[in-house]
Formats: sequence, C-alpha cells, structure tokens
Amino acid sequence: ATIVTTHANGRNNAMAVAWHTAVSREEPYYLVSISAKRYTHELLVASGEFVVNFMPIDQSEIVALVAGCSGKDVDKFDAFGISSKPGSEVAAPVLEDAFAAYECRVEDQSTFGDHDLFVARIVAAQWEESAFKDDGMLDLERISPIVYMGGDTYSTATGGVRHDREVLAKETLRLK
Amino acid sequence: ATIVTTHANGRNNAMAVAWHTAVSREEPYYLVSISAKRYTHELLVASGEFVVNFMPIDQSEIVALVAGCSGKDVDKFDAFGISSKPGSEVAAPVLEDAFAAYECRVEDQSTFGDHDLFVARIVAAQWEESAFKDDGMLDLERISPIVYMGGDTYSTATGGVRHDREVLAKETLRLK
Repeated sequence: ATIVTTHANGRNNAMAVAWHTAVSREEPYYLVSISAKRYTHELLVASGEFVVNFMPIDQSEIVALVAGCSGKDVDKFDAFGISSKPGSEVAAPVLEDAFAAYECRVEDQSTFGDHDLFVARIVAAQWEESAFKDDGMLDLERISPIVYMGGDTYSTATGGVRHDREVLAKETLRLK
Repeated sequence: ATIVTTHANGRNNAMAVAWHTAVSREEPYYLVSISAKRYTHELLVASGEFVVNFMPIDQSEIVALVAGCSGKDVDKFDAFGISSKPGSEVAAPVLEDAFAAYECRVEDQSTFGDHDLFVARIVAAQWEESAFKDDGMLDLERISPIVYMGGDTYSTATGGVRHDREVLAKETLRLK
C-alpha cells in the first residue's frame, strides 16, 4: 500500500492506494487505479497531478488512518498530524515519512469496471538516501516497506533469495 | 514478480513480470506492462489473452530462469520442466506451482514510454484453497509469496500489523 496525495481547489488529500505500478523505465511512467467515488479522484481530475508515497511499516497506522475516512469530511493532514511539503514539480504533497516518492503528472485517464486508471509521467522523484543500496535497490536491512496483501493487515518484505537470472538460465540450458 | 504466460501460434511462453496490478473489483480487471521487445508481447498481441501466475518464494528459481532467457530462443516449459495446464477460459497455460492464477482477456492496449500496457478482463481465477484463509486473504503462515523489490533478489512478505482502519480513524478523530 502506498499513500497517494493530491492537491486542488486549495485542499490537500491523502488516500491509501494498493493498486499501482510502474509502467515504463526510460521515460518513467507510473499508474494508479482509483474509484470515482473517492475524493482523491475529484482532486486528481481537477489538478492532473499526484504524488505516490512509499511508506515504511512503522507508518502503517498512518496508512490505515487515511484509508479509514474520506477527505470530503476531514483534512487528514491536520487531523492525523501528517508532515509534508509540496512536491518540487507538482503541488501535491510529499510526505516527510515516505522513504521514496514519485511526483506524477497525469497523461491518460480511462475507465475499467468500477475504477479509473490514471497513467502519469513521473516528473520528479525524492528518496531517503540511506534507504537504498549502492546498486539502487531498497536496503531491506535498513527499511521495511509496507507490503499490503489485502484486508486490515499490513505486512513487510523480508529475506532475499539471489539468482543471477542470465547465468542461471545459461547454465541450466547448457546442462540439458 | 509474477509469471505471465501466453499461448499463440502453437507456442507457449512464460515471462517474469514485476509491473502488474489489479484495476477493478466488481468487474474484475487486471493489467500488465510489457515491453514490445519481449516475445510475450508478440504472443499477447496475437492471442489477446494471458494468465498471471502468482508464485511462492520456493519457486523463485523458476521465476529467475524464465526471466533469464527469451522464448524466441527456447521453449521454457520444456527446458525448465515447468508443469502447466491450459486455462479454463483461455489457451494460455496455468502453472501447477502457482498458488493463484488469473486468466485474462485483453480489452485495451496502449503505449507509454518503452512499454505497452495491456488492460484485461479477468475471465477466470484458479487458486490453491489451502493458501487462503476463510476471509479470502492469503495465509502468510502457509504460503510465502514472492515480493520482488528489483534486481536479482526475490523477497517474501512476512509479519502483519493489524489496523481496523475505520475504527482507528473514528477513534483518532473523536479524541482530537
């Protein structure tokens, strides 16, 4: 689960979003799937911008809090004491407690079933240097990202089996 | 990481895919982002169908193996001894070692940057009953799903902090 933040009409909002993925690498794109029932949807359509905030497991309560009520009824930043600053390229807020955040500008919106898909260009990225290793991978010994498997439970990622895929495939094919 | 399987032109293929997400719940949609360079892309365009196979961590070597070579050069099912059966609604194979699999029919294809987004209707789902709890959530005490954080390392999901989000939000707002 990530926290997707938006800013429009003088209001900030934060929403827990489990349906999201990277789309493209060289020209970086990211997408989120958001129901039209959500207040975030309204702000997204109004601004065409969002930030996807990647949170550590020790912030799972904040994720649950923003998931548990609507921005139509309450200013979640104020109510839950969420620290943030505006993005460098977008007005949507970047959360202080995120270990990484992508600032995104929407390029395409389309409806599938009960959700809308917002595909966006990543226009800036922010991250906590200490959370990542020299090779750019997340350092799971220093940061425990939230891995959301559904429901009210927030898990994290641990362990790590290493496979050099190309060597492994080559060796396996050679031995056949 | 999931394994996305395809079938077209008399050939099966399997590819490791990290960029994927659910899109819609009531009418279930799922999407995958696939580079046009991949052989899977060719089979996807030809058939309009795929299966997304969710694998346990003890199958991470298979994920790395299918990631380490191209289906243009080798029949991965034969080369790596991957057991599968055709889907119930699509011709693409469902892997025997997947703990869950969605059979998908593509409804939309669009290009963003260096990848193509394939948004598909889930037309059937298969799962290992014992992997899930009564509430439909994955039972992390019985199954360790692959959680791919990038590079050559395959992690899994563990732990679980529980928050009843609505109760938590209501209580927190009441105490303010």
